[in-house]
Amino acid sequence: MPEHVDIEILDRGAAMAVRLPDGARRRFHAVWLRDNAWDEATRAPGNGQRRITLADIPADTRIAAARIEAGQVQVTFEPENRTIAYDAAWLAAHAYDRPERRSPGWTAPEIETWDAGLGASIPVADFQAVRRDRAALGGWLRGVRRYGFGKLTGGPVESEALLGVAALFGYVRETNYGRHFEVRTEVNPTNLAYTGLGLQAHTDNPYRDPVPTLQILYCLENSAEGGENMVVDGFRAAERLRAESPEGFDLLTRHCARFEYAGEAGVCLRSRRPMIELAPDGELVAIRFNNRSAAAITDVPYEHMAAYYAAYRRFGEIIDDTAMEVTFKLAPGECFIVDNTRVLHARKGYSGAGSRWLQGCYADKDGLLSTLAAIESQPRKAA
Amino acid sequence: MPEHVDIEILDRGAAMAVRLPDGARRRFHAVWLRDNAWDEATRAPGNGQRRITLADIPADTRIAAARIEAGQVQVTFEPENRTIAYDAAWLAAHAYDRPERRSPGWTAPEIETWDAGLGASIPVADFQAVRRDRAALGGWLRGVRRYGFGKLTGGPVESEALLGVAALFGYVRETNYGRHFEVRTEVNPTNLAYTGLGLQAHTDNPYRDPVPTLQILYCLENSAEGGENMVVDGFRAAERLRAESPEGFDLLTRHCARFEYAGEAGVCLRSRRPMIELAPDGELVAIRFNNRSAAAITDVPYEHMAAYYAAYRRFGEIIDDTAMEVTFKLAPGECFIVDNTRVLHARKGYSGAGSRWLQGCYADKDGLLSTLAAIESQPRKAA
Repeated sequence: MPEHVDIEILDRGAAMAVRLPDGARRRFHAVWLRDNAWDEATRAPGNGQRRITLADIPADTRIAAARIEAGQVQVTFEPENRTIAYDAAWLAAHAYDRPERRSPGWTAPEIETWDAGLGASIPVADFQAVRRDRAALGGWLRGVRRYGFGKLTGGPVESEALLGVAALFGYVRETNYGRHFEVRTEVNPTNLAYTGLGLQAHTDNPYRDPVPTLQILYCLENSAEGGENMVVDGFRAAERLRAESPEGFDLLTRHCARFEYAGEAGVCLRSRRPMIELAPDGELVAIRFNNRSAAAITDVPYEHMAAYYAAYRRFGEIIDDTAMEVTFKLAPGECFIVDNTRVLHARKGYSGAGSRWLQGCYADKDGLLSTLAAIESQPRKAA
Repeated sequence: MPEHVDIEILDRGAAMAVRLPDGARRRFHAVWLRDNAWDEATRAPGNGQRRITLADIPADTRIAAARIEAGQVQVTFEPENRTIAYDAAWLAAHAYDRPERRSPGWTAPEIETWDAGLGASIPVADFQAVRRDRAALGGWLRGVRRYGFGKLTGGPVESEALLGVAALFGYVRETNYGRHFEVRTEVNPTNLAYTGLGLQAHTDNPYRDPVPTLQILYCLENSAEGGENMVVDGFRAAERLRAESPEGFDLLTRHCARFEYAGEAGVCLRSRRPMIELAPDGELVAIRFNNRSAAAITDVPYEHMAAYYAAYRRFGEIIDDTAMEVTFKLAPGECFIVDNTRVLHARKGYSGAGSRWLQGCYADKDGLLSTLAAIESQPRKAA
């Protein structure tokens, strides 16, 4: 497209090129534009749902004419002979005609990986403040989205208070452990979590598919010696593994591990998923790591198993490296939340006099991210 | 390994080869065997959780000796100088030393894809029978696992009866739509599902991550004209697409689509996942298809977008093909369940006199598959 031309029809109307307000020349296909029309015949006013299917759009859809007018691109489609207006800024934000440049293990721009240096950046907020104030809630949730981890202080010291934390942004995921579960020493524990043992950093319930994508751990009593909590950014650990050994990273992403839990009557949970999960285009989307529930790995061919185990071992060493961990001891009325698809959590062993009683529950990221997106898109009305 | 030798140490103890009861010679690595030991120091009796981490296993673990004895393989590891017994049948079931022979889009042996010919194989059971009888429940759940779809008849005609269906095997997934939702015509619908319009076959809530993996739709009134339900096996549709066009199948698996729903205040759900999702080793694990909530696809490079849209169009045509669909009209007290990661459902339009009232809820496959596995592994005790 010559410099002075702002819009050009390509391939006999199969596509067009347009110079957008950001100065970039972007190409769009006729069928993509038509499918993404926002006129009332295409999208329901109010809820915005698409009223037509792709079959309603002629297969030979082409652009017969296009012009720019007051920040809008007017496109006329044939054979429908229908003209649709597109906001130029919307086109710029949704342009797909850009160079690919991402390598496996990339992460979304709204997240930031961390190690022991996270320190003062930990998203911490007061429970009462985030309950009263949507802006404060938005700020805290934005931190949780960014770091996959956050703390709340100043909550009530009463059983089931954690359900009020989940209600700030979404819904509890009930499981065989209940709507919430008690984390304290039991005599005949169905799970090693219900003992005083230290637990290696792990993601919860990798034997569940889908895994619970959020976990809240809420402190009610914590006078025992030890019992500190610790979190590790599994995405950072994966990035370290990739930097040290691209082949090892590759092995943990390309093959499924297996996980299993059958510690109570009537329960037999099994999954088959990779320890490091990538989207098909390489985005880092989930970590699963749990020594207690790792089952026999049977989906790695013999030829790759020794190297797979070496990568698994190294991944564990990175996770266990104190340079990766953020440690804290919860006081009663305090809690933390982790993105259970990303951030591993651990507990140091505890014993002796005093008591330790936490309650835990699961929830899902869809609700948290939706609540945050709604806060971000609807600025608070002035009082 | 010579024919007459039953066990052989390889690579100076890094692995061994053993002839198993099924006659096959299988190799196992020392570290894999050691990690999968079931002695009480390695695994907690009772709940079966692993008590050690990979770091507790020496990196130079090797097999010093191995012998077969009464159906067990006794393996001595150095440097720990520890002897562990393995059941030969367990080793045969978990052997990973086998040729790879699966092409992208393979499915697990316990599932079977179907089209309109499913007919009499539809898993149908009586609600009271599956509630009373674990064997009947197991039979029905096995059918649901196999076909991703099942019906129950003879349930109570009362509001919230569907929660009793979820309780048969697991837990409701609560969302912004509630623990359950009403599917009937509304005056100002937040979702086109709450109108009398026909709906193209779709999976529910692809804009949610994780998606609800099960959906139950329960009929309370259905005297309106039309309003039949219809289901399509998305895995079969993917298989047809692959057979017709391996390139088209590839495009829908290799690139993420996007989905969005923001039809009610405070809700802004967005996801970025492929329409056809494969595990890293090619297993078909999920279908996402929903014309109403499909957002602009921005993760397909310009060079591939035209071919991507052609594949998307063809996939929709296959889904819309009547040769794929199983249609039925629910009577009050009847319900159906779909694996929402696999089976699409649709509704024909309805209108005129009479009424149509369904209730829907979401649940998750982990609970269903766990309940089924527990039934399968614990045969009913004799009365």
